[in-house]
Amino acid sequence: LFVFYLPVIHSSVKCRSSKLGIRLSNENKQAFSNGKNDLIEEQKLAEKQQVSSPTETEQCIESLIAVFQKHAGRDGNNSKLSKAKFLIFMNTELGAFTKKQKDPGVLDRMMKKLDLDSDGQLDFQEFLNLIGGLAIACHDSFIKSTYSLK
Amino acid sequence: LFVFYLPVIHSSVKCRSSKLGIRLSNENKQAFSNGKNDLIEEQKLAEKQQVSSPTETEQCIESLIAVFQKHAGRDGNNSKLSKAKFLIFMNTELGAFTKKQKDPGVLDRMMKKLDLDSDGQLDFQEFLNLIGGLAIACHDSFIKSTYSLK
Repeated sequence: LFVFYLPVIHSSVKCRSSKLGIRLSNENKQAFSNGKNDLIEEQKLAEKQQVSSPTETEQCIESLIAVFQKHAGRDGNNSKLSKAKFLIFMNTELGAFTKKQKDPGVLDRMMKKLDLDSDGQLDFQEFLNLIGGLAIACHDSFIKSTYSLK
Repeated sequence: LFVFYLPVIHSSVKCRSSKLGIRLSNENKQAFSNGKNDLIEEQKLAEKQQVSSPTETEQCIESLIAVFQKHAGRDGNNSKLSKAKFLIFMNTELGAFTKKQKDPGVLDRMMKKLDLDSDGQLDFQEFLNLIGGLAIACHDSFIKSTYSLK
């Protein structure tokens, strides 16, 4: 399904990726701006062009990429989330969820279920499945509580 | 895959949905607080309990739900996004992407591809596939441009 978007989004990715560059460099300077002078120049240019402020959906897409990059980039390989990095992500970003789990094996089982290609790491697509699963659970719960109050 | 999370997330959903309640009522008052006094009371209680500020990932999950609810709720049926509501969503939230498209049939084809159960509407899962597809396209582009600068 996703392949469908790649050609149609291509023309707008440049515009978005400039914004992403700005966002990512501000938040993850250590991970991304080591010696990448060209990238910094590109960001300065984009800043000069006064890109309009992103919508809530665009901010959300940027956040998903920034958070994944921040955690995946901890060991230099910023395209995958190892088991250790997955655990750090779960404990820092989703601590409210993790702390509530009484079963110590929950995170292990989640990692196994999410790791569709069983390479011991989560790529961005597998990471998005986690976020999607949590969002759907929250959305279902919200809809139920809204309708039960009617 | 997602079904796996439903039992494990159950205990934390109450905490999250209180936060979601606050967020959604502030941003979508028209759609959600019409006569739902119980919900408003519940929110006031949650506010009193001084819920800690959400992480970036939690904010993102909340945003995805809030944006979907805002657009799906335009006609009272807030669990699905009709074709008309999908077009409004694309033009307001992803206008930078939509404006770049030269082919007038792109949005029609996107809607058809996204509508997996062919009911003429997008549910929250189908909506997340759209966001996921865009995020992956942006992430791939970002990774490529980062590595090409090395």
